[in-house]
Amino acid sequence: MANVEKIIRISSDQMNAEFLRILIKRGFTEARAGKCAEIFTLNSLEGVYSHGVNRFPRFVKNIIEGYIKPDEVPSLVHKTGALEQWNGNLGPGPLNAMFATERVTELAQENGIGMVAMANTNHWMRAGTYGWKAARKDFVFISWTNTCPNLPAWGAKDPRLGNNPLVFAVPYNGDAIVLDFAMSQFSYGKMESFNEEGKKLPYPGGFNNKGQLTTDPGEILETWRPLPIGYWKGASLALLLDIMATVLSGGLSTHQISSCVSENSLSQVFIAIHIKSLHNFPAIDNSIKEIIEDLKKSIPENETARIRYPGENMTQIREENLKDGIPVNKDIWDKILRL
Amino acid sequence: MANVEKIIRISSDQMNAEFLRILIKRGFTEARAGKCAEIFTLNSLEGVYSHGVNRFPRFVKNIIEGYIKPDEVPSLVHKTGALEQWNGNLGPGPLNAMFATERVTELAQENGIGMVAMANTNHWMRAGTYGWKAARKDFVFISWTNTCPNLPAWGAKDPRLGNNPLVFAVPYNGDAIVLDFAMSQFSYGKMESFNEEGKKLPYPGGFNNKGQLTTDPGEILETWRPLPIGYWKGASLALLLDIMATVLSGGLSTHQISSCVSENSLSQVFIAIHIKSLHNFPAIDNSIKEIIEDLKKSIPENETARIRYPGENMTQIREENLKDGIPVNKDIWDKILRL
Repeated sequence: MANVEKIIRISSDQMNAEFLRILIKRGFTEARAGKCAEIFTLNSLEGVYSHGVNRFPRFVKNIIEGYIKPDEVPSLVHKTGALEQWNGNLGPGPLNAMFATERVTELAQENGIGMVAMANTNHWMRAGTYGWKAARKDFVFISWTNTCPNLPAWGAKDPRLGNNPLVFAVPYNGDAIVLDFAMSQFSYGKMESFNEEGKKLPYPGGFNNKGQLTTDPGEILETWRPLPIGYWKGASLALLLDIMATVLSGGLSTHQISSCVSENSLSQVFIAIHIKSLHNFPAIDNSIKEIIEDLKKSIPENETARIRYPGENMTQIREENLKDGIPVNKDIWDKILRL
Repeated sequence: MANVEKIIRISSDQMNAEFLRILIKRGFTEARAGKCAEIFTLNSLEGVYSHGVNRFPRFVKNIIEGYIKPDEVPSLVHKTGALEQWNGNLGPGPLNAMFATERVTELAQENGIGMVAMANTNHWMRAGTYGWKAARKDFVFISWTNTCPNLPAWGAKDPRLGNNPLVFAVPYNGDAIVLDFAMSQFSYGKMESFNEEGKKLPYPGGFNNKGQLTTDPGEILETWRPLPIGYWKGASLALLLDIMATVLSGGLSTHQISSCVSENSLSQVFIAIHIKSLHNFPAIDNSIKEIIEDLKKSIPENETARIRYPGENMTQIREENLKDGIPVNKDIWDKILRL
């Protein structure tokens, strides 16, 4: 986090209470405010500040501007077998996505596999939230959202693709392994932090105005040409995720989500598979354990390298933040207290 | 293709006839030889020579060595609702994968969405084959395979992950949009071609023995440290795809597929969604058309840049190869004639 001297620590209880107060003030019922505050607090507790406490003021701003409708809940549009299409009715993204996650796990419990696609919803904050939720309840989970246009096609200068975060999660050892990633190599938030601190990116993260790959975050923030993961591969994946989200939900595609300020009316897909419905269920946890054990036998490239599975750090961050409080920039926290 | 002077052109009919002859000689029934020859010919016709004609001699070698069993067909292990787990019984990978593709589209037709996971199968050659097949029949399709260990974890020197090809496909305009990609930035085959021709890779494709990113394919072929797409992101995705394939199929994971020579007994996942079961079906083709039209409005970074969707080139390559014959290295073709 930038500006280390301005970081204060807020307990998760205090943070949750502030979020709750503000959401009730902004028209959420107590029950819905509670669920929504819990998601923002959890994201912060687990270290994803950019989609937790740091984003909360913008979430409230979007409510005030009318992009997010506190009272609206999803409505079923269409159902066939193990597949359902829902309208998010522009309700709060985290509540809609949590609803979809719970609903798709019910479908998977009945049918082995299930899919929920949701049109007309809002930013779900952290993709991993829903992966952790489903995987901890014994589901393999695949989900993604589209976004506003923030990533150029391969070989192009202007952003017409979304960075469309994608999450894959599997139950593991009473907890989960969760991979949550967007299609740009570094998020704009991360590049801004590096830029403020005058640091270079650890690897090339985009193109400068000469069309060359660069590790200078300032150059990339000027061109708006972040590097898609895997160059042309990530750009293609961004396109396919948007097409699939649009087709499956019947909602808007990235090119129709014209504003990156409000970034509303998104399309999302949730797929779950119930591992208890698999013939090999009793052996699953052990087989994942063997995969992780083998991974850990890797020869590190140097003394500082740590070979980790995705989400492995999270428990430690969570424990630290529970003990010491959640780190927040004082300016952001003061802003939240005034909301 | 390397060694341009050695390239000859073989008609797809002649190629198909040779494949058919050889497969029948190696114990395939006429019907199964026909289907398998068709897949190898199609992959070649559509420009994926590495997983078509160029790989055919190795496919036959694996049959002779007993890794691939010509007569074996998949058997159903377990079924729950829209989900089925199959044993590939070490039958020919392309036939098993085509069977799974057809089966999962039936499940999706019945249930909106379906999944087939297959353990104990063999290399399916080109991932895209199954994407084109399913998408042309009106299914959104997601599928992946695990592989032998050929990619190091992020921060590691030794390959313990697979490059686990992944395919996403959607129906489009009477045909399909198909993204088919592995987790390493460049395939070993591509790096070998560049190396033989003394060319640098267009972008960094792996690490040299000093642990630095390099565009020199020879250096990467020495270290066996290809770059995962998106650095740590692609390495994590490779891990998750392997875990999910192992869990869902009940088959072997990458660390258990010890040999990259035989590379047999793989685990694969096939997920399909029937677009005709969606409420917005009548509008789907038009909404994809609008997405592609918007993509094509991109400002190219220079005069030579072409903004394309994945698979867009394929029709042209196919037409050229139908007209002029499929390009093959004469040595490889001579080898095939002697099989």
